[in-house]
Amino acid sequence: MWVDTMGVLGTLRTNVGKMVEHKHFQMLIIGIILLNGLIIIVETYARGNDLLLIFDQIIVWIFVLEMVLKLFGLGTKRYFSDGWNIFDFSIVVASIAFYATPFVSVLRLIRVLRLIRMIPAIPALRKIIDALMKSIPALTGVLGLCMLIFTIYAIIGTTFFSDVLDYEFFGSFHTSLFTLMQVVTFESWASQVARPIINEVPWAWFYFVSFIIIGALVILNLVVAVILNYLGQEDEEVREEQMERLYKENRELKEDIQEIKQMLLSKK
Amino acid sequence: MWVDTMGVLGTLRTNVGKMVEHKHFQMLIIGIILLNGLIIIVETYARGNDLLLIFDQIIVWIFVLEMVLKLFGLGTKRYFSDGWNIFDFSIVVASIAFYATPFVSVLRLIRVLRLIRMIPAIPALRKIIDALMKSIPALTGVLGLCMLIFTIYAIIGTTFFSDVLDYEFFGSFHTSLFTLMQVVTFESWASQVARPIINEVPWAWFYFVSFIIIGALVILNLVVAVILNYLGQEDEEVREEQMERLYKENRELKEDIQEIKQMLLSKK
Amino acid sequence: MWVDTMGVLGTLRTNVGKMVEHKHFQMLIIGIILLNGLIIIVETYARGNDLLLIFDQIIVWIFVLEMVLKLFGLGTKRYFSDGWNIFDFSIVVASIAFYATPFVSVLRLIRVLRLIRMIPAIPALRKIIDALMKSIPALTGVLGLCMLIFTIYAIIGTTFFSDVLDYEFFGSFHTSLFTLMQVVTFESWASQVARPIINEVPWAWFYFVSFIIIGALVILNLVVAVILNYLGQEDEEVREEQMERLYKENRELKEDIQEIKQMLLSKK
Amino acid sequence: MWVDTMGVLGTLRTNVGKMVEHKHFQMLIIGIILLNGLIIIVETYARGNDLLLIFDQIIVWIFVLEMVLKLFGLGTKRYFSDGWNIFDFSIVVASIAFYATPFVSVLRLIRVLRLIRMIPAIPALRKIIDALMKSIPALTGVLGLCMLIFTIYAIIGTTFFSDVLDYEFFGSFHTSLFTLMQVVTFESWASQVARPIINEVPWAWFYFVSFIIIGALVILNLVVAVILNYLGQEDEEVREEQMERLYKENRELKEDIQEIKQMLLSKK
Repeated sequence: MWVDTMGVLGTLRTNVGKMVEHKHFQMLIIGIILLNGLIIIVETYARGNDLLLIFDQIIVWIFVLEMVLKLFGLGTKRYFSDGWNIFDFSIVVASIAFYATPFVSVLRLIRVLRLIRMIPAIPALRKIIDALMKSIPALTGVLGLCMLIFTIYAIIGTTFFSDVLDYEFFGSFHTSLFTLMQVVTFESWASQVARPIINEVPWAWFYFVSFIIIGALVILNLVVAVILNYLGQEDEEVREEQMERLYKENRELKEDIQEIKQMLLSKK
Repeated sequence: MWVDTMGVLGTLRTNVGKMVEHKHFQMLIIGIILLNGLIIIVETYARGNDLLLIFDQIIVWIFVLEMVLKLFGLGTKRYFSDGWNIFDFSIVVASIAFYATPFVSVLRLIRVLRLIRMIPAIPALRKIIDALMKSIPALTGVLGLCMLIFTIYAIIGTTFFSDVLDYEFFGSFHTSLFTLMQVVTFESWASQVARPIINEVPWAWFYFVSFIIIGALVILNLVVAVILNYLGQEDEEVREEQMERLYKENRELKEDIQEIKQMLLSKK
Repeated sequence: MWVDTMGVLGTLRTNVGKMVEHKHFQMLIIGIILLNGLIIIVETYARGNDLLLIFDQIIVWIFVLEMVLKLFGLGTKRYFSDGWNIFDFSIVVASIAFYATPFVSVLRLIRVLRLIRMIPAIPALRKIIDALMKSIPALTGVLGLCMLIFTIYAIIGTTFFSDVLDYEFFGSFHTSLFTLMQVVTFESWASQVARPIINEVPWAWFYFVSFIIIGALVILNLVVAVILNYLGQEDEEVREEQMERLYKENRELKEDIQEIKQMLLSKK
Repeated sequence: MWVDTMGVLGTLRTNVGKMVEHKHFQMLIIGIILLNGLIIIVETYARGNDLLLIFDQIIVWIFVLEMVLKLFGLGTKRYFSDGWNIFDFSIVVASIAFYATPFVSVLRLIRVLRLIRMIPAIPALRKIIDALMKSIPALTGVLGLCMLIFTIYAIIGTTFFSDVLDYEFFGSFHTSLFTLMQVVTFESWASQVARPIINEVPWAWFYFVSFIIIGALVILNLVVAVILNYLGQEDEEVREEQMERLYKENRELKEDIQEIKQMLLSKK
C-alpha cells in the first residue's frame, strides 16, 4: 500500500509539474497578476475600500496555492534553482508574514512589489532583465570608476563648500552625493547649485565644469559598453557561422585537389 | 449600349488610376497640402479671417475630389488596403462631417491633423514612419517593462508621498505618472520634486535615485534596441549578398574540380 | 617685350600658387587667425582700446593680401571652385565694405565671423564640417518630419493655449515654436510650461507627453541615421575591399582550373 | 666583501621587485587605499578628529614605504617609465611636502587626490582610463571645433548682450563661456537665460536656437567618434584575422593547383 501511495504521488507530481509549466496555467497567472495590479491602482483612489482588500487577500492565497503547486510539481531543488522562483517565494512568504502586521507601510510596499512577479511571468520582460543582468559584469569597471569619481568630488565638495552658503547642497558627504547626482543629470546645476557657490568661491567653476565633463565622458563610456555588449553578441555569432561555412568549403576544395594530385602522381 | 458604358467606365477608371499615381498629380497634392499648412499658420495670426476660411474650404473640397478620384481610379478594395489611405479617408470625411459643427475645437483640430497627410504624400517621410512602425514589435518588451516600472513607482509614490506636502506631484495615481514622466526627463526632479519630499521623508532619496537609474537603463535599452534594429536590417542584407556570392563561386569551383576528377578517373 | 612680360607673369603666378599652398604659408595664416581671435577676446575686456583696433585693422589687410595672392596664384576660376574660398572672400570683402560703417553691430559681427576662417584653414576641422555636410542629405527626411511635427504642435498649441493664462509660451505661432524647442530639450517643460496649462486645460497633459515621446523618437531616429551614415561609410569600404580581393582570388582559381580542364581535354 | 654586499643587494632587489608585483602585495595596497578613502569620508563627518588624522598619517607613511620599495625593487628607470607611477610619486611626495603646511586647503585636496591612486591599482579602472586616453587623438578635431564654436558664440554674446539686462550671464568673455556651458547642457537655457534676453533683443532667439542645434550636432559627432573608435578597434581585428585565414587558404589552394598544372605540363 505504501508503494502504491508513492506511485500515485509520483504520477500526481509529474502531472502537477506538467500543469504548472503549461501555457494556459502561466497565462492564468499573468492574468491574475494584471488583475492584482489593477486592484492596487484602483485602491490608490479608494483607499481602505474593504471589497478591494478582500480581493487582494484572495489573490494572495491564489499566489500561495500557485507556489505550493510549483514547489510540489517541480520539487524544491528544481524550484529554487531558478533565481526568479526565489524572488517569487520571498514575496509570497513576506505577503503572508506581514499579513496582520502593524507595519502598514511594509505591507503596502510588499503588495506593490508583487507586481514585479510580472517580469518572470512574461518571457519578453524576462529576456530584457536577463540581458541586463548579463551585461553587468562588463560594466563593473565603469561603475567602479563612477563611484570613485562621485566619492572624490563629494569629499572635495563637502570639504570646501559646506561652510559656504549652501548647507543644503554640500552640507555632508551623503548630501553632496545627492547634489552630484543632480548635477550629473544637468538638473538646475548652474542656476541653483553652481552660480551661488561660484559667487563665494570663484574657483568652483572648475569643480563643476570638470565634474560635468568627466561625468559625461564616463556615462558615454557606459553607454558605449552596453551597445558594444549587445552588438558583439548577435553580430559575431552570425559572422562566425558564415566564416565556418567558408572554411569548411575551402577544406573540401583542398581535399578534392589533393585527391587529384594523388591521382596524377600515381599515374606517372 | 450598356456594355459600351461599362467599357468606357473601365477605360476611364484605368486612366484615372494612372493619373492619381502620376508624379505630377502627387506633387500637386503635396503643393496643396503645403498651401493648406501655410493658410493654417497665417490663420493663427489673423484668427477668423473670412478669406482664409474660404481658402480652407476650397482646399477641403479639393481633398474630397482627390479622394473620390483615388477611390474610383484604384477601386475601393485597393484603396483601403493601404493604411495611409484609411487615414486620409477618415480625415477628409471628418472634415466634412464637422463642417458646420458647433464644436469649433474639434473642427480646428481636424484642420491641423490634415497636415499629417504630408507623411504619406512625401516618400522620404513615409519611409521613416514605416521604419518606426516596423521597429515597434522589437520594442514591445522594453515598452512593457517601462509601463511596469512606471506603474510600480507611481503606486509607491501615491501611497507614501500623497499625504506629505506635495499633493500636486503625488496626489493620485495619474498625477504620479505625470510626475514620474517629469523625473525621467530630469526636469527639476531634484530641486522641485525630490528635495522637498526628502525633507519630510528621508528615505525618499532612494525612491528617486533608483527610479532615475532604472529609468535611464531601460531607456538606454530602448535606444540600443532601435539602433540594433536598424543596423541589423541594412548590414545583414549586404553581407548576406556578399556571402551568397562567395558560396556560389565556391560551388562552381567545386563542380569544376569534380569534373576534372571524373575526367582523370575515366582516362585511367 | 609683351611676350616677356607674359612669361614673367606666368612664372610669378606659378610661384605664388606654390607659395599659397605651401605648408608654412598656411601655418602662418592659421597663426594670424589665432592671433586675431586672441585680439577679439581681449577686446571684449577692454572695449574700444585703440591699439587693439589698429592690430585688428592690420590683420584685415593681411587677410586682403592673402586673398589677393591666392586669387592671383590659383586663378579666379580655381579659387572660386572651392566653397570655403567663397566664404573667405565674402568675409574679407565684407570686412572692408563695412570698414567705416555706422552700423557698428554689423562690423563687430563680421569681425567675429572671421574666426570661422579657422575651419577651412585647419584640416582636422574642415574634415568634420565636410562630413557633417555630406550627412545632411541622409537627414532631410528626419528634418522634414521634425518640421512637420513642430508645425502641427505649434498650431495646436497656439489654437488652444493662447487664450489660456500663458501668453508668453503659446501667444503666437513663432512663440509656440520657441516653446516647443524648449520642451523638446526637456527644459522646465513640466514645472513652468505644462503644469500651469494643465491646471486650466486638463487634456493638455496628452499634448505635452505625446510631443515629448514623438519628439524623442524622431531625435533618436536622427541620431541613429547619423551613426549609421558614419558606420556605413567606413565599414563598408573596408569590407568591400576585402570582398573584392576574395572575388578576385576566386576568379584566378577558376581560370587556373579551367586551364587544367582544357589541358586534360586536349590530351584526350 | 664589497662584491658580497652587491650580490646580496642584487638578490634583495630582485626579491623586492617580485614582491611589489605580487598579487597579494597589490591587493594589500588596494585595501589600504580603500581604508584611506573610508577614513577621509568619515572625517567629513567628524572634522579634525585626532584619531582619524593619526590614521591618515600612518597611511601616508605606508604609501611612502610602498613607493620606496617599488623604487628600489623596480629601479628608478623602470619605475618612472610608467606614467601612473609618476602620478603616484607626485601625490606621495606632495603629501609629505605639505605635511605641516599652513595651506590647509592644499593639504586637504592632496589627501583626496590620493584616492585617484585606486585607478592604477585596479586593472579594470586602469583599462578604461587608458582606453579614454587612447581615444583622445581621434577627438582633437571635434574638441577643437567645440572650442571654436564656444569662442565665437561667447564673443558674440559678450558683445551684444553684456549691456542688456543680464550682466550675470554675458557680462564678460569667461562669464559667457560658463553661460554657454549651461545652455549646451539645456539647463534653464530658455526660462532663465534666453527668454529675458529675447524680451530685450528679439533676434537673440536665433543666437540661442542656432547654438543649441550646432552644439548638439557637434556633441553628437563626438559621441559617434567615440563609438566608432571602440567599434573599429575590436571588430576590425577579428575580421582582419578571419580574412587573413581566408586569404591564406586561397593561397594554398592556388599553390596546389599550380602544382597540378606543372605536373600536367611536364607530362605532355
